[in-house]
Amino acid sequence: MPEAPVSVTDALALIVGEADGLDSRVQGDTAAAIDLVERAGRVFVHGAGRSGLALRMTAMRLMHLGLDVHVVGEVTTPAIHEGDLLLVASGSGTTGSIVQAARTATEVGASVLAVSTTDDSPLAELATVTLVIPAATKTDRSGSASGQYAGSRFEQALVLLGDALFHALWTRSGHSADDLWPSHANLE
Amino acid sequence: MPEAPVSVTDALALIVGEADGLDSRVQGDTAAAIDLVERAGRVFVHGAGRSGLALRMTAMRLMHLGLDVHVVGEVTTPAIHEGDLLLVASGSGTTGSIVQAARTATEVGASVLAVSTTDDSPLAELATVTLVIPAATKTDRSGSASGQYAGSRFEQALVLLGDALFHALWTRSGHSADDLWPSHANLE
Amino acid sequence: MPEAPVSVTDALALIVGEADGLDSRVQGDTAAAIDLVERAGRVFVHGAGRSGLALRMTAMRLMHLGLDVHVVGEVTTPAIHEGDLLLVASGSGTTGSIVQAARTATEVGASVLAVSTTDDSPLAELATVTLVIPAATKTDRSGSASGQYAGSRFEQALVLLGDALFHALWTRSGHSADDLWPSHANLE
Amino acid sequence: MPEAPVSVTDALALIVGEADGLDSRVQGDTAAAIDLVERAGRVFVHGAGRSGLALRMTAMRLMHLGLDVHVVGEVTTPAIHEGDLLLVASGSGTTGSIVQAARTATEVGASVLAVSTTDDSPLAELATVTLVIPAATKTDRSGSASGQYAGSRFEQALVLLGDALFHALWTRSGHSADDLWPSHANLE
Repeated sequence: MPEAPVSVTDALALIVGEADGLDSRVQGDTAAAIDLVERAGRVFVHGAGRSGLALRMTAMRLMHLGLDVHVVGEVTTPAIHEGDLLLVASGSGTTGSIVQAARTATEVGASVLAVSTTDDSPLAELATVTLVIPAATKTDRSGSASGQYAGSRFEQALVLLGDALFHALWTRSGHSADDLWPSHANLE
Repeated sequence: MPEAPVSVTDALALIVGEADGLDSRVQGDTAAAIDLVERAGRVFVHGAGRSGLALRMTAMRLMHLGLDVHVVGEVTTPAIHEGDLLLVASGSGTTGSIVQAARTATEVGASVLAVSTTDDSPLAELATVTLVIPAATKTDRSGSASGQYAGSRFEQALVLLGDALFHALWTRSGHSADDLWPSHANLE
Repeated sequence: MPEAPVSVTDALALIVGEADGLDSRVQGDTAAAIDLVERAGRVFVHGAGRSGLALRMTAMRLMHLGLDVHVVGEVTTPAIHEGDLLLVASGSGTTGSIVQAARTATEVGASVLAVSTTDDSPLAELATVTLVIPAATKTDRSGSASGQYAGSRFEQALVLLGDALFHALWTRSGHSADDLWPSHANLE
Repeated sequence: MPEAPVSVTDALALIVGEADGLDSRVQGDTAAAIDLVERAGRVFVHGAGRSGLALRMTAMRLMHLGLDVHVVGEVTTPAIHEGDLLLVASGSGTTGSIVQAARTATEVGASVLAVSTTDDSPLAELATVTLVIPAATKTDRSGSASGQYAGSRFEQALVLLGDALFHALWTRSGHSADDLWPSHANLE
């Protein structure tokens, strides 16, 4: 719980400081994660609340790479099948709808790439690969893992990690920025 | 343009490195920005593509603070009126739909808080307050301002700055994390 | 199951025919339904898939009337409280997420207006008022209640009934069409 | 402008009455419209406000048929290319963003299927096929073409016509309802 008013720049310093060193703190097999995306027939992303928005940012970039990407819950998102990849995020690894989606995905033969704050959870048990970002979960209001509100630190790290996955995939694709540009939506 | 495959952790190091020092690089009157949000009758957020997703993350937190928040383009978003605030983001400050929305907002007597990479743009001219994040814009593919693709660096900074605005507003509200919890959506 | 190709105009004749007489087939206390909307502090709409889209059409019109309306699942939708109204639709009245939302709404003291194909369901038990549209449900593929696919007939009726609720509310408001126009979104 | 309060059932009678005979009033080459959808590589739908919601209802059904469908404005919607189909709706045929999208589509070699209240408009000029529903447009508040508010009559007809297009396509596909069921989203 904050004790006194904090300026925007001090808040920004806190936030940037909590992201510092993220590259050495992420746990899990990131090479296997890249492999899952590259081998996927289609990629489905699914997250609740702000985690879902962070994953949408990643999803848009994967679309720019030429992948066939869908956001769970959108009206034109089809059923997931064998060979597809479900990319999910849940700080606690216990969010009901996310765990259920992961279960369905594994049942049909799809892979599951999970991002979480722990690899000891129902979600991690189902996931093919789990990437762990040590950070406060949404319902942890003790203030011990972050000076920020609820799951903010995790959600910010999720945005950065999603873009790191994209960056790694992009550099492996051999495409230049100009090559990717024609993939950007042209009807808005 | 990337020259060789980069691992996820190296990509993450690049991304975290580009966010480093953001607190001292942000330009503009952040205190005035906070003031605009606190005085606003209602807050409307508007951004294209990934900037729009970043602003949605901010919008959700402002809702948690008890503000009346709307995302432009959602079906239940009403007309903006005098006394409301339009929070927009555009790397270049020239995105047509964003500039047009800013113009409408000023015409009806609403305030405009803009986040951009420059304060020399049609958007900045219309905005009540512009916060500037020095970073590559979406269409800058020269690679000089960022080692990342297109506007990624700006969009990441927008997520972090939006959460810094929230954090500053939260600490000024005098509310604890437990106080805010009941604002979270309870119907999903 | 269709036995032979049908032209668009023949399909349209089938669809219009299935909507015919809807006004005399709707069951439930429509006057009480209107009363619930008029007395509501805020209106929340919630439906899955195409039913959710139909309710969004209604939600937009209620916003035009000046009501404070939210779509469950949107990022800026706050918690529902005592005195609010939850407007839900479920053909079967058994959709898990919808029934759960109705339960939460009643627990906090909000009203629930349900549209369904039956008033003998978990949803109808929870609802303050249930309006019944006799029509096939989404999972009824027997073809006995409709010549159309799945829940199409119900979803079409839901669009029409939602607009009828709006029309009745509008005529009771005393406002002209010109009065409502300024409520339309002005930032797109 | 309504002169006296109307009950929900009377409103519903008005609405159903305005839909009556729609099958004989729709103008344009519906067989060519079906042909455009069947030959399309991918289908993109685009409409503003309630027309956009109506088209999303159609889009979901086309996805159930196994088509590759995208809603313009969603984060994972890619660029439209030669051989794709843009399905748009605009009562007046002059909505700026819709006309612009139709222009882009034709420029890249995609087809355009338009639904409108007139075939004498900038949109109809660009469209490969235009289906005309005689009905009031959104900004026609004279009350001469419909007893309902703004574009309601057109938007309702758009829902019904979209479902008629689906029904015709379905009956031509030779698939049973059970065949289509596995296409329904399985991750929610």
